[in-house]
Order: sequence, then structure tokens, then C-alpha cells
Amino acid sequence: MTAVLDDSFHVFDTTLRDGAQREGINLTVADKLTIARHLDDFGVGFIEGGWPGANPRDTEFFARAAAELDLRHAQLVAFGATRRAGGNAAEDPQVRALLESGAPVITLVAKSHDRHVELALRTTLEENLEMVRDTVSHLRSQGRRVFVDCEHFFDGYRANPGYAKEVVRTAHDAGADVVVLCDTNGGMLPAQITAVVRTVLADTGARLGIHAQDDTGCAVANTLAAVDAGASHVQCTANGYGERVGNANLFPVVAALELKYGRKVLPAGSLAEMTRISHAIAEVVNLTPSTHQPYVGISAFAHKAGLHASAIKVDPDLYQHIDPELVGNTMRMLVSDMAGRASVELKGKELGIDLGDDRELVGRVVERVKERELEGYTYEAADASFELLLREEVEGRPLHYFRVESWRAIVEDRPDGTHANEATVKVWADGQRIVATAEGNGPVNALDRALRVALERTYPQLAKLELVDYKVRILEGKHGTESITRVLVSTSDGSCEWSTVGVGENVIAASWQALEDAYAYGLLRAGVEPRRND
Amino acid sequence: MTAVLDDSFHVFDTTLRDGAQREGINLTVADKLTIARHLDDFGVGFIEGGWPGANPRDTEFFARAAAELDLRHAQLVAFGATRRAGGNAAEDPQVRALLESGAPVITLVAKSHDRHVELALRTTLEENLEMVRDTVSHLRSQGRRVFVDCEHFFDGYRANPGYAKEVVRTAHDAGADVVVLCDTNGGMLPAQITAVVRTVLADTGARLGIHAQDDTGCAVANTLAAVDAGASHVQCTANGYGERVGNANLFPVVAALELKYGRKVLPAGSLAEMTRISHAIAEVVNLTPSTHQPYVGISAFAHKAGLHASAIKVDPDLYQHIDPELVGNTMRMLVSDMAGRASVELKGKELGIDLGDDRELVGRVVERVKERELEGYTYEAADASFELLLREEVEGRPLHYFRVESWRAIVEDRPDGTHANEATVKVWADGQRIVATAEGNGPVNALDRALRVALERTYPQLAKLELVDYKVRILEGKHGTESITRVLVSTSDGSCEWSTVGVGENVIAASWQALEDAYAYGLLRAGVEPRRND
Repeated sequence: MTAVLDDSFHVFDTTLRDGAQREGINLTVADKLTIARHLDDFGVGFIEGGWPGANPRDTEFFARAAAELDLRHAQLVAFGATRRAGGNAAEDPQVRALLESGAPVITLVAKSHDRHVELALRTTLEENLEMVRDTVSHLRSQGRRVFVDCEHFFDGYRANPGYAKEVVRTAHDAGADVVVLCDTNGGMLPAQITAVVRTVLADTGARLGIHAQDDTGCAVANTLAAVDAGASHVQCTANGYGERVGNANLFPVVAALELKYGRKVLPAGSLAEMTRISHAIAEVVNLTPSTHQPYVGISAFAHKAGLHASAIKVDPDLYQHIDPELVGNTMRMLVSDMAGRASVELKGKELGIDLGDDRELVGRVVERVKERELEGYTYEAADASFELLLREEVEGRPLHYFRVESWRAIVEDRPDGTHANEATVKVWADGQRIVATAEGNGPVNALDRALRVALERTYPQLAKLELVDYKVRILEGKHGTESITRVLVSTSDGSCEWSTVGVGENVIAASWQALEDAYAYGLLRAGVEPRRND
Repeated sequence: MTAVLDDSFHVFDTTLRDGAQREGINLTVADKLTIARHLDDFGVGFIEGGWPGANPRDTEFFARAAAELDLRHAQLVAFGATRRAGGNAAEDPQVRALLESGAPVITLVAKSHDRHVELALRTTLEENLEMVRDTVSHLRSQGRRVFVDCEHFFDGYRANPGYAKEVVRTAHDAGADVVVLCDTNGGMLPAQITAVVRTVLADTGARLGIHAQDDTGCAVANTLAAVDAGASHVQCTANGYGERVGNANLFPVVAALELKYGRKVLPAGSLAEMTRISHAIAEVVNLTPSTHQPYVGISAFAHKAGLHASAIKVDPDLYQHIDPELVGNTMRMLVSDMAGRASVELKGKELGIDLGDDRELVGRVVERVKERELEGYTYEAADASFELLLREEVEGRPLHYFRVESWRAIVEDRPDGTHANEATVKVWADGQRIVATAEGNGPVNALDRALRVALERTYPQLAKLELVDYKVRILEGKHGTESITRVLVSTSDGSCEWSTVGVGENVIAASWQALEDAYAYGLLRAGVEPRRND
């Protein structure tokens, strides 16, 4: 672990748990692992991974996280509920699953609104307190750090402030490190949050956190209002994903804390990665990144008014609230988001490709990325395609392992309900023309197989490549199937995984492009020299 | 004019002027007139229509508005700048154009940041004050009501508070009814806004307004913070449209004022039209309405967690911050694998399908949903497919509009780099076997066209259906192209949009399924009776 901040302020991310409640998000375990890596790169202190035991996918996530994730900054957090009414925490299967997840930190959700205790838990107010006390103590006795989420806290406080505070006190006394006040229904406004947090802090002495939902459009402001009142733990989700309207958006919250409050809450250098990470996570969850998201949207520093143009040139700071580079974004003019010179240089360094002081080369790469991003490519989520592009520019020639003459895919739905998928490819490799045909369970799979058959003699290295993920997005969703299609393919060679991109009017053709890049990158990684086949 | 509220609080809309600065918005005069009618229906007090004189389209807008708009609640406002440095308001052509617009109210933008005076206006601080004084006085002498927008006020106040306040005082003394403090660069946070507005109000005695941009994600909260400090005029845009990230969103601002502050700022009954009006305006500007917009997004009152469904049935107010009907929205239960009986019953009610007390039927639906979600279907994002499933269970038979015998799609990449896409379908409709072939720009598009050709005689209603979005996801990203493919298709009939789902090993076959559902639902919506073709 490097660059861990002290414990005095917590940036706590719940994208994988509460964020996944957003309508339209449905994450696989692999998605969750990828997002966790991005969040850790970004430098959040805590990553809430899910509810082990309640959900087999979350149980699997924690098992695989233990084996596969090598977190540099964040600690993994398991989410769960207090034990059952009338039970015993030590024997509660749900509580046991939390311990078995192996997560060093556990967030327990507890009821703090009296009517919810009666209506949803169907138990007494006193037993609810006992459930909090027993569960927190038990988890503490097992060596775990415990945070307690007080669900519906602000509504509960309005209905019965004494009881709401009693829940906070109970959690605190039982050993919870942080008691998080949740605006679960999202109906609060900043002034209300400040007043309640201030009172609860004074009356209980507990360390407080805030969890805000965005139903009034004020989740970011509500989170900051709680910090103003003394909260030192903020729960957020990437891009504000979450149930209903969403959660407090991690990115504007940390940007405000770092840039407006002057408070270091991320490792040095992280903030400048914010735009990239926001977009990368959007790609994983397969939602279009919001163009108008504060700080990280591609329009966030876009200036339309031509009126200002000359004044902007003299002093851009008069027309923008922060320097966009602080958050890895760029001022308009530049069509492309990722393609600043600096990012390309940085990326080159990351890939071990020295671009040195060759400003002309960097300029050429930036131009090519811009052009392709205009066509619909995205390199933020397709590292391997970007590296191929970069290497081609550095070496001044295409990386040709094989040349495609033509291909064809046929999909047939037969009267008996079965499907036939057949593909034929005609390629040149090592000076030879090869025609191969294969069947598959879909047209892309058939093409994939046919291409492997065609190339296996020349490149036996391809045998161990496997396609592990495949995503399709229609860009400019105005005319449905007539729009531009973007395909992202993830490929693995067993030890490493990479992503490639293809774009076209046609889902199969776009997939083919991404496959070609995937193979080329796999061969490059395997140390195979390109062989000209022109 | 009916139901005009008193003048003590102004809801001022600038969608047509500042909102139109949003990237991607390009309004015709007809669009502007339509939006003005929607805003007037909604009951805002002021509609800023544009900058007559600066822009021929805006000049035309005011001319046509005078002739064609019959506003019930709102007053039309023309926006313009103070006179030129060294000139005379009475002879300034730009000021004359404001008067000639015929608008009863004029908003003048004035510089209040010392450096902007020097850099953008290239004049002295004293002359800038004179420009404000002269222009306001002249417009007042011509019988117009005047509001003054102090551009870059909060940044200017930080740089030179004395001068910023001097501009406010000058405008006020010259006869401006409201002086609007603008966070033009959008970098402020609520606590800063409250402090500055409070001081300026105390020091100048001017009636103050607020104009907030959303660059920190706090525009709604900033607007409310100014109201908390005594501002009585809020400038907003529908759906938060505006330059860069956008402006303070009209809808959550007025909803907070009406529902959280208990302040009447709209005519009676208006708030319940909010969702409809938000979507109607999105339609005119040709942007997809944000599904996650506070109050008015279709997800704003959507509940996913099946856990809560039974408690929601007992007391929905425990799980939502307001009754969605207050803003013309509705609660939606998302049917997902977590969903139990309660969610299905609620969903049935929402669709107007009475499942009554038929516990066996509800159980059957829950089972079928669970089974299908295990196979990879998702009904949460495919309402139309769910409704078809529900109706089939209620009616005890499949909804067959047509029967598919077989289909075939061919995609060919030719040596010259072009693609051919051809599809053939064999279907039975109305007792007849029809074979149709079509080309498209991709295999799904070709199938879509072929199916339309095949069915157009029997179901002319299909002609107006259009696929508006198409998403593909590979589930369980374990084996790449050998995995399960899920396709979500959104279809529109021009007035309504619905989503359907298809799942299979094969992207084309999954797409075909989603298309079949999309057509069936479209025909169901059009009131067409299913015809058996078995």
C-alpha cells in the first residue's frame, strides 16, 4: 500500500452496492472487480463491494476480490444488516456471511426511524437498539472495523429526534467508528442537513458520516453541508449512480473538497485522473457518460459563446471556475476529451513507449485520436487499441500480422427454432492465402473461430486467447439500428486482459474490427514480430 | 390573464436565452414559441425570450411572440447589454432594439467584476457604472420594467467587493426593480452564496435575484441558498439546460420552494403538470429527457429493492420524499430478480391490469419472471416485454400477431472494404405465408426492414414505429462471444417509447426476439387484436 491518507477524513464509495441499484445497471462480478480497480486507482479510502450472503453474486465478488484485487489505497467494505430481531448476532447467518466475506470493514445498516422499526422490522424500538448493540459488538469482537448506516435518519429525526439520536449513541457506544446519517429518501435540503448534523454531533459525540440521495437535486450540496457541520466521512457513488435519481456524485464532492475547501482527501495526483476514471466506469456499467456532468462531462468546460473567445485567450481563468486540467478535463476548443498532449505523453510513459521530446509525434497521435473519437471510437475504455495506434505512429507503419481479403457471416433461424451460425474468412498470413469456415453460437463467435482456424498454423499463440467480455453501444441513438455501432471487446491470454474497440454502421463489422485489434495486441504481447502480408 | 401571483417572488425562466447556450441545442423561432407556451402553461412569471437586435432570430421571435403568443401567466422579457462605453443609451442601437422588441420587461447584463470591465469592456470602472445608470434610466423613462444581471458577480465580489456592490447600488438607484447576482462561472457553493447575498442585501437595500450555473453540481442548492438569504427572484432554465454543465434547473427549484418551503410560487395546479412539461420541452429541443432528473425523471420514483416492496404497499410515504402525483410523476416498481409478489401486484396496478386477489396468478408471474431473469432477461429495463408477459399470463394465451417460420441474415465484408447486409424472413400473418427480403446497414436493420415489408399489408400500424435505441450486453463475461447476449431495444410510435428485451447465445437472435416483442407491444398499444396464425 502506498500513499494512504490519514484516517481523519473518509472518502467512502458505494458504487458497487448502492450505485448498482440504479435502474438499468446490472453488474457482473467481473464488472465489479474492474470498477473496484478504477476506484482504487482514483484513491478512495473505502470501496463498499456489496452484500455478501444476501446475494450470491456479491459473495462471489468478495471471494474473487480477496484473490484477484491488489488494492493500493482502498479498503474493501462488506455491507449488511443488523441481526434478526430476537436473535443473536454470533449465530445470525447473515452476520456470519459478513465475517466470512473477509472484508476488514463492515457497514451495518440500522433503522433509526421509529415507524420503520415498527413497520419494516416489525419489532420494538428497544429491540432495534439491542440489534445494533449486539451486532456491532460482535463484529468488533471479531476484529472488524464497523461503520453504521442509519437508514432514513433525517426523516426519523424529524419524527422522533430522541430515538434517532439514541440509535447513533448506541452504535457509537458499541464500538462503531463512524455513524453515517442517511437521507435515504433524498428529500432534504442543505440547510436542514447542516442543522441536524450539527445537533447530532454535539449531542452524541459520535464520529459522523453522510449518505445523501439526490431526489431534490441537492445531494452534492447536502454532502458538503454535512461536512460543514462536522461530518468527516462522505458516502458517494461514481457518476452519482443510484436508486431513483441517484446518490451523491463522488466526483463533484471530492473536487469541491480538494479545490474549494483546500482539503486533501485523495492521494496526490488523483484528481487529475477524475475525468478518465468517470468515463471508464461509465463504459463498464454500459451507460453513456453524461456530457454535462460537473467537472468531468465533455461539455463541462465547453464555451459556446464566441463573444468571449478573445477574452478567454487572454485570461481563461476569468471564464472558468477552475483550471480543467486539475480534474483531467480540457477546455472546449479541443473536441476530444482524452487527447490532450499531456495525457498522450503520460499514457506513452505508462505503456513504456518513450515519446521523448518528439512534439511532432505527440501532435500526430493527438490528431489521430481526435479524428477517431469524432467517428465514435473511445480509447479511454480500449487501452489495447490505443497502444496499437500509438505504436503504429511511433514505428511509422501499420502492425500487420495478417491481411483480411473478405469475410462473411450467416445467421439462420430454422423452423424448428434452432439457429445456425456460419462464417467464412479469407485472409493472407505469412504470404499464404487461407480460406477457413467455422460455425459458432453467434455470428461473432463464428467469425472468431474461423479466424483462429485460418491463423492457427502461422500464429499458434492465438490458441490461448479468449474473449472474456463484449459490449455494444449504439451512438447517437436517434435512428435505432441505423446508427453508428461501437463494440468493445475484452480479451484475455490467461494472465492479462485487454480491451479493443471497433466502430461502424454494422454490429458485425464493428465486432470484426475489435477482434482484429484484439488478436494483433495478443500477438504483440506474446512478442511476435509483425509479418508483412501486403 | 388569470391566476397571476403577486410580485413578491419571481420565477424567471431563461431557457430560451441562456438555456439555448447548451451544446447541441439549436432552436428555431417556432421551437421558441412552443417552449414559451409550455413555460406559460407551467406558470412561470417571466420568460426571457432572447437578445433582440443581437440575433435576427431573436428579433423575429419577439415580433411573432407579440402577434401569436397569448400568455396567461408570464411576462415576456428581452435580454440585452448596457450601452456602449462612451455612448448614450438613448442613441445606442442595441438599446433601441430592446425597446423595439416590445417586451414589457428588459434584463440588462452589466459587468460587476473589475477585471472583466477592464479586459472585456476595455473601459474604466467609473464609465461602467455610468453605462448601468444611463441605460437603466433610459429604459425606465420609456416605461419598461428593468432587471439588471450582474455578470460574474460572485467572482467579482471576491476580487473587489466594494466595486461589485457599487454596481448593485447604481442599478438599484437608477430604477432597476431587481438586481440579479450571477454566478456566471458556476464555481460557488451554497454557504458562500448565502453569505454574499446576505451582505449585499444588507449593504445595498436592493431587491436581489440569483442566477446560478451548475459547474459545482450545486446550482439548485445555490439558488435556494440565495432565497434563504433573502433573494426573491430566481433565474432558472427548464431541465437545467445551459452552457457548460448547465443552469439551475427550474423544476427542482420550484418544487423545493412549493413543497419544502411551503411557498406558493406557481399558479394553483401547475406543479402537477411539471413532469409533462419537462418532457414536452425536452421533446422540442430534441434531447432525450434525463431518466434520472429529480422529481420528473421516469426513474425519480422507481423502486428496485424487492425487500421494501411489502413495506411500500403498506405506507408508500415511508419510501418517497414526496407523493409523486404532486409533480405529475408516478411511483414505479422495477421488476427485478429481487422482486417478490408485492412488486408484481404493484406493477400490475401501475399498468392498469387488475391482478385482484388472484394469488395463484401473481405467483405464476413471479415464477416466470424469476425463471426468465435467471436466463438473462431483465424486466426492469424492458417494461413492454414485462407487460406482454403479464398480459399473456392474465389471458392464458400468447399474444400472437404473427408467426415466424424462419429468418436468415447475411453479412459480407467484401475485398473493397464495403459491407453487404441482407435478411430474409418467412412469416405467417392473417393466415398467409409471406417471404420477404431486405437490405440494411447492418444485419438487425436488414431483419427489421424485412419484417416490416412482410407485415406491412396486414399491420399498416407498424409503419410509424421506429427503433430509437439499441443496447447489447454480454452476460457473465466468462467466455466472450460464447456467452449469453442480452439486447434491449427502445421503440417509439412518435408519442410514446417502450423497451423490450431479447436474450440468447446469438446477438442476432436476441435482437430478433426484442424486435418481435417491440412490434407486438406496438400493435397492442395501437389497439390491434391478436390474430392466431398457428
